[in-house]
Amino acid sequence: MSQISNLNKIKGGEFLIKETEAADIFIPEQWDEEQLMIAKTCADFLEAEVYPKLDALDNHEEGLMESLMDKAGELGILGVSVPEEYGGFGKSFNTSMLVAEVIGAGHSFAVAMSAHTGIGTLPILYYGNAEQKAKYVPKLATGEWKAAYCLTEPNSGSDANSGKTKAVLSPDGKHYVINGQKMWITNGGFADIFIVFAKIDDDENLSAFIVERGFGGITMNPEEHKMGIKGSSTRQIFFNDCHVPVENLLSERGNGFKIAVNILNIGRIKLAGAAIGASKAVVDKAVNYSNERIQFKLPISKFGAIRYKIAEMATKIYAVESAMYRAGQNIDDAYDALVADGMEPGKAKLKSTEQFAVECAILKVYGSEALDYVTDEGVQIYGGMGFSAEAPMDRAYRDSRINRIFEGTNEINRLLTVDMMLKRAMKGELNLMGPAQAVAQELMSIPDFNQEDEGLFAYEKRLIKNIKKATLMAAGAAVQKLMMTLGKEQEILMNIADMASLAYVAESALLRTEKLIGIRGEEACATQIDMVRIYLNEAMDQVWLHGKEALNSFAEGDELRMMMMGLKRFTKTEPFNVKDARQRVAKVVIEKNKYPF
Amino acid sequence: MSQISNLNKIKGGEFLIKETEAADIFIPEQWDEEQLMIAKTCADFLEAEVYPKLDALDNHEEGLMESLMDKAGELGILGVSVPEEYGGFGKSFNTSMLVAEVIGAGHSFAVAMSAHTGIGTLPILYYGNAEQKAKYVPKLATGEWKAAYCLTEPNSGSDANSGKTKAVLSPDGKHYVINGQKMWITNGGFADIFIVFAKIDDDENLSAFIVERGFGGITMNPEEHKMGIKGSSTRQIFFNDCHVPVENLLSERGNGFKIAVNILNIGRIKLAGAAIGASKAVVDKAVNYSNERIQFKLPISKFGAIRYKIAEMATKIYAVESAMYRAGQNIDDAYDALVADGMEPGKAKLKSTEQFAVECAILKVYGSEALDYVTDEGVQIYGGMGFSAEAPMDRAYRDSRINRIFEGTNEINRLLTVDMMLKRAMKGELNLMGPAQAVAQELMSIPDFNQEDEGLFAYEKRLIKNIKKATLMAAGAAVQKLMMTLGKEQEILMNIADMASLAYVAESALLRTEKLIGIRGEEACATQIDMVRIYLNEAMDQVWLHGKEALNSFAEGDELRMMMMGLKRFTKTEPFNVKDARQRVAKVVIEKNKYPF
Ligand SMILES: Cc1cc2nc3c(=O)[nH]c(=O)nc-3n(C[C@H](O)[C@H](O)[C@H](O)COP(=O)(O)OP(=O)(O)OC[C@H]3O[C@@H](n4cnc5c(N)ncnc54)[C@H](O)[C@@H]3O)c2cc1C
Ligand SMILES: Cc1cc2nc3c(=O)[nH]c(=O)nc-3n(C[C@H](O)[C@H](O)[C@H](O)COP(=O)(O)OP(=O)(O)OC[C@H]3O[C@@H](n4cnc5c(N)ncnc54)[C@H](O)[C@@H]3O)c2cc1C
Repeated sequence: MSQISNLNKIKGGEFLIKETEAADIFIPEQWDEEQLMIAKTCADFLEAEVYPKLDALDNHEEGLMESLMDKAGELGILGVSVPEEYGGFGKSFNTSMLVAEVIGAGHSFAVAMSAHTGIGTLPILYYGNAEQKAKYVPKLATGEWKAAYCLTEPNSGSDANSGKTKAVLSPDGKHYVINGQKMWITNGGFADIFIVFAKIDDDENLSAFIVERGFGGITMNPEEHKMGIKGSSTRQIFFNDCHVPVENLLSERGNGFKIAVNILNIGRIKLAGAAIGASKAVVDKAVNYSNERIQFKLPISKFGAIRYKIAEMATKIYAVESAMYRAGQNIDDAYDALVADGMEPGKAKLKSTEQFAVECAILKVYGSEALDYVTDEGVQIYGGMGFSAEAPMDRAYRDSRINRIFEGTNEINRLLTVDMMLKRAMKGELNLMGPAQAVAQELMSIPDFNQEDEGLFAYEKRLIKNIKKATLMAAGAAVQKLMMTLGKEQEILMNIADMASLAYVAESALLRTEKLIGIRGEEACATQIDMVRIYLNEAMDQVWLHGKEALNSFAEGDELRMMMMGLKRFTKTEPFNVKDARQRVAKVVIEKNKYPF
Repeated sequence: MSQISNLNKIKGGEFLIKETEAADIFIPEQWDEEQLMIAKTCADFLEAEVYPKLDALDNHEEGLMESLMDKAGELGILGVSVPEEYGGFGKSFNTSMLVAEVIGAGHSFAVAMSAHTGIGTLPILYYGNAEQKAKYVPKLATGEWKAAYCLTEPNSGSDANSGKTKAVLSPDGKHYVINGQKMWITNGGFADIFIVFAKIDDDENLSAFIVERGFGGITMNPEEHKMGIKGSSTRQIFFNDCHVPVENLLSERGNGFKIAVNILNIGRIKLAGAAIGASKAVVDKAVNYSNERIQFKLPISKFGAIRYKIAEMATKIYAVESAMYRAGQNIDDAYDALVADGMEPGKAKLKSTEQFAVECAILKVYGSEALDYVTDEGVQIYGGMGFSAEAPMDRAYRDSRINRIFEGTNEINRLLTVDMMLKRAMKGELNLMGPAQAVAQELMSIPDFNQEDEGLFAYEKRLIKNIKKATLMAAGAAVQKLMMTLGKEQEILMNIADMASLAYVAESALLRTEKLIGIRGEEACATQIDMVRIYLNEAMDQVWLHGKEALNSFAEGDELRMMMMGLKRFTKTEPFNVKDARQRVAKVVIEKNKYPF
């Protein structure tokens, strides 16, 4: 259910060309009682059940992960976003994001749970027919059955649709007989249900099947040895004449790749949620350590080098968190609107996430990279103890690293960010061309150097507009210049992806803070204001660098000169003492001795 | 022995204010037959003895590390830089750097060996008296005895001089009785000799002792469990009334901290060597993988996103390697000059390294960060396999991470970089003030916009001069403005440290390439020229960002405006298509299927 009364019908990707009002976004300071209670249940569960068992989990203590999943199921944690008719609680998408965030601090458990509730359960919930849903979803919502998702194969990773696993109808027409090999399957070791992607006969596209472990013909290799999330079961799985009843085909023949992609959209934004939860936990520990650890007769939290890190950690978390609940709410709002228009809920859920696939990809990238930054600096703050397996940073660092790889590598997601926007533009769903042309026009005109920014954030809002202009300028020119070959110019696409992403995340942090000021007043939000400015300051620098690199990659001579002048104009900033701002942010975090926002 | 006839008497830190001729630096393309043979011995040793045992090492197979050290000793690898009179081969410093580089690809073995030959052996070699050297060094040079270095304590890490370990003269005056606890001691589990730092009575400063395991009173905790370099023995060591004969005091009472610091200087540049060796090995594997791994019907090495990484990896390695052998040769040259002036060789070795302590700190930071970058992208290139403990990137990634922590954290080394330069300036040993004032003057004058850069690298040399000017401007102004409090402004110091470091590393890459062109001709060096330009392009951007951040941290109003104009001028570049340059570099690396420079 939407928490924003003023339904803003913004579409996915439109952040680049439309203004959003602060009032129209959801901010995590607005969780209601119930949501906070759900969050507390999750946090308590980690504290009581998961944290004492982290070593045992990583050592694959027999049955432990399953029993934790069972307990989570008993508490209702696995069914938060499953509709009530299927034994869940039917909570909003953002509520399920909140659960992902809180549980995200739970290391391997978080991965197991997210695979189960996300890529494991949702294909059935969203693409299953009535019988399939009735049969499987209630058991999944309570954790009685556990699920895994089998897409990747040894020779088919990023290129997911190239899988070789085959499904052939049995002579009697009652079964699909599946043969093939899947790899890297999370929860593989104990799952009861496998969502298996395979090609029927010589189809070009995948189909999806619900496969029960009991169907037979399933064998697996031992647990993979991994850098991190060691407690998460990861298996290579072999299907040898695995007989799947025809009624277990999910959706339609050839629809599998679409299912895979759409389910991954949800997985991506949820991954950002989990990454932010994990990041906060790392900051809590690192700031605490920095307050306790004395060197040169001072707690190391007194040193500028450490305060810098603490402020950067907090700022990145704050910014990505702002974007992620903003997008989550957009998804909720779109869902509500679609259902109000009469769409079937499962379909509406998919459509609403698909609508914001660009934002999901951005969040996947920026969430996982925030976590990598945070854990890396967490290790560094701990010094030698950061390298000790007996202190918490080692596990955090190793567990973090997977997030840039799965749910689509960050390279793939960066490429998708731009690719999806351009495709929508081409289809006329997203009016990028108009605004891009307007920017091109603006380049020709005399710049207005006497801009008066009045009121709080007027200046910052202008900067964000400018990032968007810079992005549109670079993207527009690249499209015009390179046309059909742009798809091969990955470096340029990645530059543009980052420019767009920075616009989105910086704007989200600003809107959140603006809304918060409306509630708490400016004074109470001084630190948040600092964080917005710190983030924006860096974003402007990054936009400049990405823009320069992109433009120099395809333009020359006068055209380049003109666009570079534009880029300079669009990334121009007023002097800002970012050091002092970081010191102020660090001070608050250090005093509270945890991530406090 | 120096390999550069034209002895250039440049002093440490002077790179910031003096021009260096390409002819005056050593480049690794100039290794002589003997050096190449030594390198090959080391590489063969890794191939034959270490690589097949990496898992066994990480599992602490009983006696394995010691036996590998023994074998390395038999091959002479441990005694390369030990004088012949003590059973070594008396090779130059840069030759020992080469050994550090090649062995650097040897994971835990590299750490064990570097602790033994470096911080374990050198204190005796450089600070021992004749008897001490005669007694210990020959056994260390062959590996018959193995050494560890005990400086760190639970409450004394970065603040190394604050250790609590005590040494008290025994009533009969024959022994120092040592009590205390040391931590994180590499090779602790099997070392025969411990260099132990402790305070005699209530001294303010540490003293250093040569402690034999057999002296008794030494106990240790089990092996530490660590994120990486798991094969390296790391122990907590307790000294309980450990009786050390008075003749085993190293150097003089109270001289321990100086010993520790000077030995660490050498350790720092050697760490860069090891990091570069490890980095090259990672590139070899990653590029090979990228050539073999097919996705979307193409080897992934065809994708711009991957080529970007490969080019960046190679460029960083090339640049840091250039700087590290340049500094190594400076140390060799300074040593030769001091010995020619009649200084005792041990003392001369120390003085020559101390002289280049700034460069050693820079290299420690940039070497370890290059390796972290390279391993991180190595993981990413491997995709899911990057996260597998059965593929090589997992170990590389985990082993890499220690390098930013030990031998002085990178924070401490960045701070030291500037601190040492300013102290030298204060003492009149380094004329920073003159050049800084000249830059300040230049700011007032009308810039000469019609600079004609003639000849290869004329433009690039101007850019490097400009980085130095920007650094001097920021440093000079910070000193003037903040005076005595600058030491507390760590953020500013770190900005300046990076600006200076970028000048040094970029210049080194350029000089190396210039010299190489003189030998091979321009055409044969096209890729190296590209790498210089790629590195410099990024360096200019970074200098701009660091400079801006620094200046905005302490200046305001007109002063800030003027300096920002200067910074803009100093970081101004011509358009450069860095994407195409990276593509060209990647092409070469991919074709050679390894790091080929
Ligand atoms: C611990 C773990 C758990 C996992 N859990 C599951 C699971 O439950 N179910 C499941 O189906 N899968 C799972 N995976 C698989 C995961 O989704 C894949 O590893 C991921 O999609 C990347 O595929 P890959 O490993 O084949 O890498 P590749 O696709 O081979 O990629 C290698 C490198 O090439 C790059 N690359 C590839 N194609 C392109 C391109 N066109 N352009 C630019 N760069 C490109 C990638 O970004 C990457 O850097 C898991 C993996 C791991 C490691
Ligand atoms: C695997 C391993 C092997 C090692 N081997 C040896 C060995 O053989 N012999 C030995 O003696 N030691 C050894 N060490 C110890 C190593 O040198 C120390 O870990 C290192 O010096 C950092 O000290 P610390 O761990 O106490 O961190 P701390 O000094 O507590 O540092 C914690 C954090 O605070 C920062 N910090 C500290 N002081 C300041 C300051 N003044 N300003 C700004 N930031 C500051 C640091 O940069 C770091 O980020 C080893 C350590 C490890 C992990």
